[in-house]
Amino acid sequence: MRSRNSQKPGGRNGDPRKSAAFVRLADNLADTARGFYSRGWIFGTSGNFSSVVSRDPLRLAITASGLDKGRLTRDGIVIVDENGTALNSMPRASAEAALHVAIVRNRNASAVLHTHSVWSTLLSERHGDAGGFAIEGYEMLKGLNGISTHDHAEWVPIIENSQDCDALAKSIDAVLTELPNTHAFLLRRHGLYTWGKDLEEARRHIEILEFLMEVTGRTAAAAASAVAHSNVAFGD
Amino acid sequence: MRSRNSQKPGGRNGDPRKSAAFVRLADNLADTARGFYSRGWIFGTSGNFSSVVSRDPLRLAITASGLDKGRLTRDGIVIVDENGTALNSMPRASAEAALHVAIVRNRNASAVLHTHSVWSTLLSERHGDAGGFAIEGYEMLKGLNGISTHDHAEWVPIIENSQDCDALAKSIDAVLTELPNTHAFLLRRHGLYTWGKDLEEARRHIEILEFLMEVTGRTAAAAASAVAHSNVAFGD
Amino acid sequence: MRSRNSQKPGGRNGDPRKSAAFVRLADNLADTARGFYSRGWIFGTSGNFSSVVSRDPLRLAITASGLDKGRLTRDGIVIVDENGTALNSMPRASAEAALHVAIVRNRNASAVLHTHSVWSTLLSERHGDAGGFAIEGYEMLKGLNGISTHDHAEWVPIIENSQDCDALAKSIDAVLTELPNTHAFLLRRHGLYTWGKDLEEARRHIEILEFLMEVTGRTAAAAASAVAHSNVAFGD
Amino acid sequence: MRSRNSQKPGGRNGDPRKSAAFVRLADNLADTARGFYSRGWIFGTSGNFSSVVSRDPLRLAITASGLDKGRLTRDGIVIVDENGTALNSMPRASAEAALHVAIVRNRNASAVLHTHSVWSTLLSERHGDAGGFAIEGYEMLKGLNGISTHDHAEWVPIIENSQDCDALAKSIDAVLTELPNTHAFLLRRHGLYTWGKDLEEARRHIEILEFLMEVTGRTAAAAASAVAHSNVAFGD
Repeated sequence: MRSRNSQKPGGRNGDPRKSAAFVRLADNLADTARGFYSRGWIFGTSGNFSSVVSRDPLRLAITASGLDKGRLTRDGIVIVDENGTALNSMPRASAEAALHVAIVRNRNASAVLHTHSVWSTLLSERHGDAGGFAIEGYEMLKGLNGISTHDHAEWVPIIENSQDCDALAKSIDAVLTELPNTHAFLLRRHGLYTWGKDLEEARRHIEILEFLMEVTGRTAAAAASAVAHSNVAFGD
Repeated sequence: MRSRNSQKPGGRNGDPRKSAAFVRLADNLADTARGFYSRGWIFGTSGNFSSVVSRDPLRLAITASGLDKGRLTRDGIVIVDENGTALNSMPRASAEAALHVAIVRNRNASAVLHTHSVWSTLLSERHGDAGGFAIEGYEMLKGLNGISTHDHAEWVPIIENSQDCDALAKSIDAVLTELPNTHAFLLRRHGLYTWGKDLEEARRHIEILEFLMEVTGRTAAAAASAVAHSNVAFGD
Repeated sequence: MRSRNSQKPGGRNGDPRKSAAFVRLADNLADTARGFYSRGWIFGTSGNFSSVVSRDPLRLAITASGLDKGRLTRDGIVIVDENGTALNSMPRASAEAALHVAIVRNRNASAVLHTHSVWSTLLSERHGDAGGFAIEGYEMLKGLNGISTHDHAEWVPIIENSQDCDALAKSIDAVLTELPNTHAFLLRRHGLYTWGKDLEEARRHIEILEFLMEVTGRTAAAAASAVAHSNVAFGD
Repeated sequence: MRSRNSQKPGGRNGDPRKSAAFVRLADNLADTARGFYSRGWIFGTSGNFSSVVSRDPLRLAITASGLDKGRLTRDGIVIVDENGTALNSMPRASAEAALHVAIVRNRNASAVLHTHSVWSTLLSERHGDAGGFAIEGYEMLKGLNGISTHDHAEWVPIIENSQDCDALAKSIDAVLTELPNTHAFLLRRHGLYTWGKDLEEARRHIEILEFLMEVTGRTAAAAASAVAHSNVAFGD
């Protein structure tokens, strides 16, 4: 017999955002957001971050819509269902929650992170018509799950942006299915998505990919002078 | 009959800077300034920030003149009247207070923020002769008030700089009236102005616009090598 | 008659680094150094910072030699005499103390700050053969002492670097005498020197000049693509 | 006669990671890592840092494998033997521990630091085919041990990257023996290694070298426009 006290915080009928496990996870997501903000990989309310709470039924903890990510706290994290809709009485989730659900399902991921850096935005346009670009030969690639040598070419697909999130979720699912070995993708003129088997791995993937984006972007700019003006490279 | 106790702090005859509401607002403005300083969008004493205290009569809380914005506290915020003049016995307001008043009136804004970043300064000169430039197709544009798709071209007008603040206020008013849909403008070789229906929205606009300025500025530099040296883009 | 207790800390015969006035000043210098480090304008042990303690005899508080500026505390500040030599029993002062003395005398300055940023180093070489360069038309120039309009051309002289600090001090004195209106100079491939009537003004000068160095350096890089590829500036 | 209390923390049979000396050293290494992360010279789990604990037998304190360097604490520091293998019961050391051992032996160094910055990665590829590049004429070079003038050309050798750490250690040893005056080297598309007679000197070397890498990288990009468009360098 269930006692009248059975509706405990975090229990079946309680507020699932009050459980100790959720609080830990929400603190971790908020800390991740503030850290990325301080690195310059998100600005203002851009970016969204999620972590799987349960798989059956599928529930994700995810950043609420429209909050300043540089000041995010656990209160800015809500729970969405398998459709990306926030549970009863919670603030609205990020409009991109459906994309997180698509990625979690396709990759069996436990965490999905979306940053919005200058370099990833720039490269998403630069290589947009080609549908992606390869990053090759860097030691840093070893930080991607399953990669054990720098002698690897990581293809980063670029997907056209859309305001129809359901259609976009289908595009993402199709690309991920077609390219099962990719660790990330860019939305054109929009930003970077990556994921991991846990939040720690997903965070490591962001760190690695943002590094590689910056190296790739700056290499292109520097290459111009290397070819045209190799004799003045040191300015003397 | 008014009692002898009627001259309360914040009351008609008290120091309006002592009221709890003003203290909250001044703390928020100072926090905003220090945050922008840490992002590199203002340097030294540059930049000024305001928020509407009352509309009738029009009173703005605004940064005082000549203070180091990276160390700003609530004590660096003063109140100006509808002419941009600091109220009795307060330190002198930023010389650009009249521009804030003009923007508040033209846009019915509740907050006006002026940053002074490297990228906005650079673009204000680069596109100065053209009188402005468009930023187009970025997801980040959706963070601007009223914009619901990335498929938007935001025109950023550039206004010639002047030391005659009254004349400059008139130029700004004319440009804003001519271009009622703009969210911001640049003063040439001077910096960025944006606004919002509250301080939070204005702050979000700065975050978005500074991101877009940096992307626009870096894209131009990278484009040079993409065209001239497309075969060495990855340096191998 | 002086009592036996007259040798107070900070008194004529006490440790002048123990006086409350010196502690305030040393804290301020150390705070300035850590702030510039966090902005990326000094690296490691580079940079040195001074403030006048007395004019007759001339005594400067200045950073000691070889300390990590990102971790500087008041204990890293020593006092030098009119020759730039540390007073008895204090750690060795920065080898560039003689340059600070030369500047203080020539400009009647009360504080001298020397940063070592990437952009000032780059420009010091780029315009080294020309002996300097002008920065013109920026609103930010108004932050320099005595400048009241953006319609100003600030000449930044570049002086050849040397390990003979006495000779270098003479070169600096000659340039400052020849160019009485300058607010700063660069040592070639070495860094930026500026000063002020107090530490606050000198710090403001560094903020303004480092901003203008970055704008000037980035404008040159961006200008390349503006001319050659004006049709691809927005990448679309 | 040894008492039963002889197995003190830090003693022969105790946990050497509990000794006060090790705790100080581990705190210092972790602090160094977090500082470099905040400067943007390492990302995610990249980079590794060591300091000699004893010379006979050779023992190094070194970062454990796979930890987030931006959040590193003393618990992330382990001890390795002369083969780069972690002592009994400790977490696995960085896979590059063998490289640290090789450097410590060849240079009689007491600390080895490996960063992974954007600029060093970019230059390691740009000058990779040439086997290195020279950095010449900068005042900052004086911060390298034994260099007393800016009039110095520092050769930075570039070594091909490899996943065979023993082979890589031999390559490094050979290059260091052939070039006894170098203070650092780059692994191609991988990062920067430097060292010092103590951790403080090694940290200073990183600060100086990362500065010089950024200056060298940016100078090349800026040089392109200086040659091709010298008449628009100031954009007016």
